Amino acid sequence: MTKQIIIYGGRGALGDCLVRYFRSKDFKVTSIDLKQNEQADVNVTLADVQDLEKQAEFIKEKLQSSLNGEPVEAILNVAGGWAGGNAGDKDFIKNSDLMFKQSVHSSLIAASLASTFLKESGLLVLTGAAAALDATPGMIGYGAAKAATIHIGRSLAASDSGMPKSSSVLTIAPITLDTPMNRKWMPKADTSTWTPLEYIAELFHKWINDPSSRPTNGSVVKLTTKGGNTELSYH
Amino acid sequence: MTKQIIIYGGRGALGDCLVRYFRSKDFKVTSIDLKQNEQADVNVTLADVQDLEKQAEFIKEKLQSSLNGEPVEAILNVAGGWAGGNAGDKDFIKNSDLMFKQSVHSSLIAASLASTFLKESGLLVLTGAAAALDATPGMIGYGAAKAATIHIGRSLAASDSGMPKSSSVLTIAPITLDTPMNRKWMPKADTSTWTPLEYIAELFHKWINDPSSRPTNGSVVKLTTKGGNTELSYH
Repeated sequence: MTKQIIIYGGRGALGDCLVRYFRSKDFKVTSIDLKQNEQADVNVTLADVQDLEKQAEFIKEKLQSSLNGEPVEAILNVAGGWAGGNAGDKDFIKNSDLMFKQSVHSSLIAASLASTFLKESGLLVLTGAAAALDATPGMIGYGAAKAATIHIGRSLAASDSGMPKSSSVLTIAPITLDTPMNRKWMPKADTSTWTPLEYIAELFHKWINDPSSRPTNGSVVKLTTKGGNTELSYH
Repeated sequence: MTKQIIIYGGRGALGDCLVRYFRSKDFKVTSIDLKQNEQADVNVTLADVQDLEKQAEFIKEKLQSSLNGEPVEAILNVAGGWAGGNAGDKDFIKNSDLMFKQSVHSSLIAASLASTFLKESGLLVLTGAAAALDATPGMIGYGAAKAATIHIGRSLAASDSGMPKSSSVLTIAPITLDTPMNRKWMPKADTSTWTPLEYIAELFHKWINDPSSRPTNGSVVKLTTKGGNTELSYH
């Protein structure tokens, strides 16, 4: 039977890399995003709605019909974005709101989807940020949204969270990802400390195929890249 | 000169207690809430709008005129509520959304107000929850919203957060407050472990009047009540 996977944020840089990678491994890939990913087998294309509950219901209905009752190996939520700003910034509220919509709304929906569609022993991945393990005075909304995401991951890994039996929840905490946007906006940065997207795709693939390779359920997995090599540490 | 204070959530049980207490201490009290508090000197009455940015702008405009350029001693955000639910709960998304709107939106707006209206050496208080210091699998949205609130408080206490000079940010982390609603819904509970609202009012008053009595800037202040006595611990 074809293995199925859901990638939330499948049109972002990391999401697109994951869609292509898992297609190449013969997974049936569903992408959830504001725009279609033509590489995906199935697209759930969201309207840019403000109402979280309606968005969650829309996604569930689409998946009910497209998944056709077949189990899902993994749900990988890599939706998100970045916006800075301290409390005095003129766009503080606007940017904070956006950060919560991108990171927290997608994480809550991914959690709800996992409780419904993920198979036993399946994997849910959320995307935190290494920065959110400490205070983030220059990017308060971003840090708080990622702290909330980390809390969601830890809570889902605890007993009676609504997750399927023997499933795992892991929250990655990258420092900087090597994406085209980051290369565009930080042209002079030392990219040897940026984590390659392919590394993450391979990591997720290993976690999916071999549950014994997964870190302890509920871990925050920090990705530290130096000289092009990435190491994992657990928080 | 009359001392001014802003209470966000001034119609909740704790907020109403604070409005009355600070009025009795001759503060000029502004209450921000969905309904008026007739005990307050000034009310900023919110429409139940979904748009965070519009709500923040509305509040700022109202305060610009009512505060009349005079400094504010403290901004106390005690808005919030409680809703449980794990990821499999049918109201998981709806309740999580509500928790973020009540706790995080009010905390972001309070932070923005503090950067604009709080005096130097002033006090901003946010309301976290003791439960959110650990995983909260049975109330995921609530715990995540409170974890985000705690992160906002910690970030505001760090350098270059946009807060006024020498000001303090403290996040209280109650276990259970002794409110009429809690007495109604938990009629058989041992209320000797519930924290009296008046204790909190007196604590805030002390922190406002005597900055040297304040815990370290950025502290999460856990309130543990036993046999009617409340002790503070810092996280």
